[in-house]
Amino acid sequence: MEKRGRGRPKVSSVGTMSEAAVELFLEVGFEEASIDDIAARAGVSRGSFFTYLPGGKADALWHYLEPTIEAVEPKAAESGARKPVRECIEAVVQAVEPWGDSVPQILRDAELMHVEEVLQNTGGKRFEEAAERLAVHIALAEDSLPESPRPATISRAIVGAALGSIRAWMQHASEPAADAVRRGLEPLVAYEAK
Amino acid sequence: MEKRGRGRPKVSSVGTMSEAAVELFLEVGFEEASIDDIAARAGVSRGSFFTYLPGGKADALWHYLEPTIEAVEPKAAESGARKPVRECIEAVVQAVEPWGDSVPQILRDAELMHVEEVLQNTGGKRFEEAAERLAVHIALAEDSLPESPRPATISRAIVGAALGSIRAWMQHASEPAADAVRRGLEPLVAYEAK
Repeated sequence: MEKRGRGRPKVSSVGTMSEAAVELFLEVGFEEASIDDIAARAGVSRGSFFTYLPGGKADALWHYLEPTIEAVEPKAAESGARKPVRECIEAVVQAVEPWGDSVPQILRDAELMHVEEVLQNTGGKRFEEAAERLAVHIALAEDSLPESPRPATISRAIVGAALGSIRAWMQHASEPAADAVRRGLEPLVAYEAK
Repeated sequence: MEKRGRGRPKVSSVGTMSEAAVELFLEVGFEEASIDDIAARAGVSRGSFFTYLPGGKADALWHYLEPTIEAVEPKAAESGARKPVRECIEAVVQAVEPWGDSVPQILRDAELMHVEEVLQNTGGKRFEEAAERLAVHIALAEDSLPESPRPATISRAIVGAALGSIRAWMQHASEPAADAVRRGLEPLVAYEAK
């Protein structure tokens, strides 16, 4: 049996740690939520905090959003008729499909938790990774490189438009997220190579 | 005459402080450049550092990039025939026009200074502000609100596509930035209301 510090059993996980963090963010706001208090609520020592959330408190938010970003993975067209831009758009639409017509709590309560700027400052790298996956897909289909103008531009236009349409959708969410995002991204098929 | 701490004359400014910071970033890399060393190089006390760069070391980088972002200000069409999407595209093209065909040093040397991730993490809020100006322009023209789906989506698609096309342009810069960005953003006129 593995020896653990202070004989404490491993009762936590990234999930329970993130849950404890978000509970505290809702109560006192992101800035005021101390790492000590989050660790205590999750039932682990302060030292364990960074084992679960190595990037700090913001990682607790991304724990809930990263699965959606990571789901943005375009599939090659099976028919052989490759339409990489449309495939990328579909990849984003499918990634938000699980949200249905209810806004994820982390986004819905972002203002309450005072994390809007935190999400903005810590989202860059994560959205860039999604854009890079799209760029690779387009480059493969167009026989170019992901850093060439078209793949680089189209991929970031898609990510930007997706963020904008999700942002607008969040205000009312009177339809499924996937429908709002599809409508927002539709004009980007103008980038499809003729 | 205003009394100054320690009688030191005000020899610095945001510009000289940023210059000192970037020089040091180039020599030792962003992480290793201490605030003490930057202040000393700029000829001011450590305490003055945050007077000039309140957001910390990254502010020195943005000192050179912010004028470009702030220049993204769409003009209303004079003819009365409003084409807000095209006007927004032109606003971005004109903002990068002063770069000509040479990549701004901060971007060119980003890898050398180890600031690529720093720029990603600190750019969110700044690009968001540019997107909001574009959204306001579109909303005015279309008689909607900046946070409605179309303005929110189009504005972020434009910013995303601009960042992608600048990124690709930086690799070779064999033509003016404005030409590369115009070509990258051109398909976005598909968003123009019919």
